[in-house]
Amino acid sequence: MKIAIIGGTGDIGEGLALRLAQQNDVIIGSREAAKAQEAADGYNKLLKERGMRDGIRGMSNEEAAKNAEVVILAVRYQFAVPTVQALINAGALKDQIVITPIVPMSKQKLCSFTPAAQYGSATKECSAALPEGVRLVSTFQSLPAPRLADLDDKLGFDVIVCADDEEAKKTAMKLAEQLGDIRALDGGTLAEAGLIESLTPLLINLAIKNKTKPLSIKFV
Amino acid sequence: MKIAIIGGTGDIGEGLALRLAQQNDVIIGSREAAKAQEAADGYNKLLKERGMRDGIRGMSNEEAAKNAEVVILAVRYQFAVPTVQALINAGALKDQIVITPIVPMSKQKLCSFTPAAQYGSATKECSAALPEGVRLVSTFQSLPAPRLADLDDKLGFDVIVCADDEEAKKTAMKLAEQLGDIRALDGGTLAEAGLIESLTPLLINLAIKNKTKPLSIKFV
Repeated sequence: MKIAIIGGTGDIGEGLALRLAQQNDVIIGSREAAKAQEAADGYNKLLKERGMRDGIRGMSNEEAAKNAEVVILAVRYQFAVPTVQALINAGALKDQIVITPIVPMSKQKLCSFTPAAQYGSATKECSAALPEGVRLVSTFQSLPAPRLADLDDKLGFDVIVCADDEEAKKTAMKLAEQLGDIRALDGGTLAEAGLIESLTPLLINLAIKNKTKPLSIKFV
Repeated sequence: MKIAIIGGTGDIGEGLALRLAQQNDVIIGSREAAKAQEAADGYNKLLKERGMRDGIRGMSNEEAAKNAEVVILAVRYQFAVPTVQALINAGALKDQIVITPIVPMSKQKLCSFTPAAQYGSATKECSAALPEGVRLVSTFQSLPAPRLADLDDKLGFDVIVCADDEEAKKTAMKLAEQLGDIRALDGGTLAEAGLIESLTPLLINLAIKNKTKPLSIKFV
């Protein structure tokens, strides 16, 4: 599958690129193509050293999306809608599956994140901004970036997937399970994604307060 | 420890009573003392049959609270504040630790619960209604009632505990770990309890959609 990771040069983008590249053709997107290429080179080097499948490419966000069947918006909340708008303006979004792992979240105190309930849901905002024909999936919010980027980490998490389109949901669930020891669970429709967006500040706060490694979630 | 379970005749109250009775003196509270006594008799019979510690008593909600160091509000969201008010009016709340496992939640469709964000947080409302000197703890929301009531279930969950008073938080964390194979995690202050209240509709929805047993949570 051809996957573009918009904003794939950092945070959750790195782990997604490294892991998805094992069974897919991954393109890193960035606002500057050169920066994307640089990140792709770094990721490929790392994968080669481990004897793993590489071939990650780097492009501008727009070119990356144009060349992909699945577009992952690995950008911060404040860049979510502007990024979608820029992709639309460039004619880069037509009939792809778009995945949002974006979490509206603000750091209130040194060690306390709260879900930005006042902002609403990133999924809802992306959904409103996307043209018809593009199928949105909301997932991956609960994946801790540093553990995803550590290829020795087997993960062992559950990932919740919300979408209105069943085929798009199934595709995202398959991709989730390619990331490692991951069970993908059906979280319902996009309207229900606010619940999974609010898991992320909870996970971050719990890890800080209880002095654990970055935490993810398993439903038992 | 002397523990009153207000509304302890059903739902989460049953499992809490059966399990906490092993190391504590548990009193079931109900609006009708006779109903509380009847529930207590049933629980004691069940415990005796299994050769476990019994001695659960039944009283009116007010008498139960008056005789306890820890008061668990095992009532539905719509009865939360009225129940607290009734206890205050009867002079039954002075310096106890009060635990709220209450979740504001509404059933929207046949198989979809949403957190009643429009209602705010049950913890916040209970906190505002309680007199000074009473220390509130918000926890146990993510415990599935049927699994808690099944004494063969080892659980194996994490439970998040939020409180402003550190001693009250530690007491509740200790009680949580007496319920079974449970790890109690510090969830911060009462202001942060909205996050854990919203886990419950997520857990219920996931279990329905993915056709699993009732689910709880483990942070990994």
